[in-house]
Amino acid sequence: MTTLSFTKGHGTGNDFVLLTDPEGAIDLTPELVRFLCDRRFGIGADGVIRAVRSRALPEGETILEQEPEAEWFMDYWNADGTVAEMCGNGIRVYTHYLIAEGLVAPKSNDTLPLGTRAGVRDVLVGASGYTVDLGRWRLGKERLVAASGLDVARPGLGIEVGNPHVVAVLADEAELDGLNLEVQPSFEPTPAAGANAEFVVPAEPLLHNGIAHIRMRVFERGVGETLSCGTGAAASALAFRHWGGEQMPNSWSVEVPGGRLAVRMFATEEGEHVSLSGPAELVYSGEIEVPAF
Amino acid sequence: MTTLSFTKGHGTGNDFVLLTDPEGAIDLTPELVRFLCDRRFGIGADGVIRAVRSRALPEGETILEQEPEAEWFMDYWNADGTVAEMCGNGIRVYTHYLIAEGLVAPKSNDTLPLGTRAGVRDVLVGASGYTVDLGRWRLGKERLVAASGLDVARPGLGIEVGNPHVVAVLADEAELDGLNLEVQPSFEPTPAAGANAEFVVPAEPLLHNGIAHIRMRVFERGVGETLSCGTGAAASALAFRHWGGEQMPNSWSVEVPGGRLAVRMFATEEGEHVSLSGPAELVYSGEIEVPAF
Repeated sequence: MTTLSFTKGHGTGNDFVLLTDPEGAIDLTPELVRFLCDRRFGIGADGVIRAVRSRALPEGETILEQEPEAEWFMDYWNADGTVAEMCGNGIRVYTHYLIAEGLVAPKSNDTLPLGTRAGVRDVLVGASGYTVDLGRWRLGKERLVAASGLDVARPGLGIEVGNPHVVAVLADEAELDGLNLEVQPSFEPTPAAGANAEFVVPAEPLLHNGIAHIRMRVFERGVGETLSCGTGAAASALAFRHWGGEQMPNSWSVEVPGGRLAVRMFATEEGEHVSLSGPAELVYSGEIEVPAF
Repeated sequence: MTTLSFTKGHGTGNDFVLLTDPEGAIDLTPELVRFLCDRRFGIGADGVIRAVRSRALPEGETILEQEPEAEWFMDYWNADGTVAEMCGNGIRVYTHYLIAEGLVAPKSNDTLPLGTRAGVRDVLVGASGYTVDLGRWRLGKERLVAASGLDVARPGLGIEVGNPHVVAVLADEAELDGLNLEVQPSFEPTPAAGANAEFVVPAEPLLHNGIAHIRMRVFERGVGETLSCGTGAAASALAFRHWGGEQMPNSWSVEVPGGRLAVRMFATEEGEHVSLSGPAELVYSGEIEVPAF
């Protein structure tokens, strides 16, 4: 048995076990991650995020070549024991944790470059939350989306934001609330690697102070319905803007079951990027005896 | 904001946040309990158990009149912020916690009297687990039980073990596994105060070394499907014995989704009692900042 110190945090209800391990000394295995994420027999979370120096991980080498300032790497694991490239909610919570632990000390409006398996991600430290540049996005195929609670399949738009999404707009709030996302939605044609399914409705009114407001529910690939999905919120705003045409703004507010996220599209030299802003909370810290796996 | 120290534990997957508060100084409110039990925004548990001296609570007065040795009271709250009389899994975890915290020091095979809202409960401290005398039980009405996944409603037997249960025997493992307990089962006639619904099947073989083996799933009133319900396991064994007749033993092994529990019926001066035995685990300890509610 080994004792691990940890902190539990969440971003709009998407929750994480955070570990500090600067030199990569913890043997983080799929079994250990599954134990830590078990909500009854372990701590319970959607994923584990380890704070490790980029130079302590093989994956960190290319990060440091790309951006020598990216001292810290977000070693992100899903609850099922697989590693993930990126997590839009997780990286805000991770940034908040690095600051709370005194591992970084950015000023307000500083940008902090962090290593992830998807490359370097820049996080802007704001007064009331964090903004992460999710980078380039890409329009995918149209697919029909069928879900329990919908009378007929709806047209969905494929959007890639690091990971694949299919977004369907529903008729109204009642239809969104009536969805049964305990049953996995299906796509026609079926995407080879699967996709997250987002269902959105416009708020009333859609436009307010130049910002478009929508509400979203999400079924995450391999997980089920979740309270929030950061890249899914970005995909939803991008899909809605695509359908809405020229009068649509580049600033979006997306209400998810766990809170509210802001999405912004902006031009860069390499093409349009999309960013995600939202809150991050650290809830408690503890110590757990973990078995040797 | 106040800082609370807590420990997280479970008995066969039924999990609890445990607090030490000898003099009853913590203002435990429904709001605070709901926050602590929230699995994403708080700590996450099926309930909160506060270790408080019987003399520090109004409810403890009658306990001490009944049994002056019952120094500690199990102040049990459900995740929804209501208080509960007793919890068969919770009292084992509570006993384990009192010992780990050094608040009691029973020897192996000692019996520890504890105060609960259902009266004094005696817990036997064994080498590999804890046994609690659940006291007298009572046969209730027969009711039809309908559940999602069952073709027709099944006869169920009402059993009171401090709280009300209705137990239905299903045809086989496939039928038990096919139940959809995301949908609340219903009873005909409907019990005024509701009831927990247990579904059981015999193991193959039922009898082994003089012990009857059954498998159970449970829908807890006001909660939903859980990994374990201690009084439900006792009710299931009692109902099965009732139907099985004379050849049925008084020792039962009940497999629940979160582990295995033992149930025993035994004679006392005031009539037959039923006891529940099983494991208890403490998983981790932590500190949480709680808002003022």
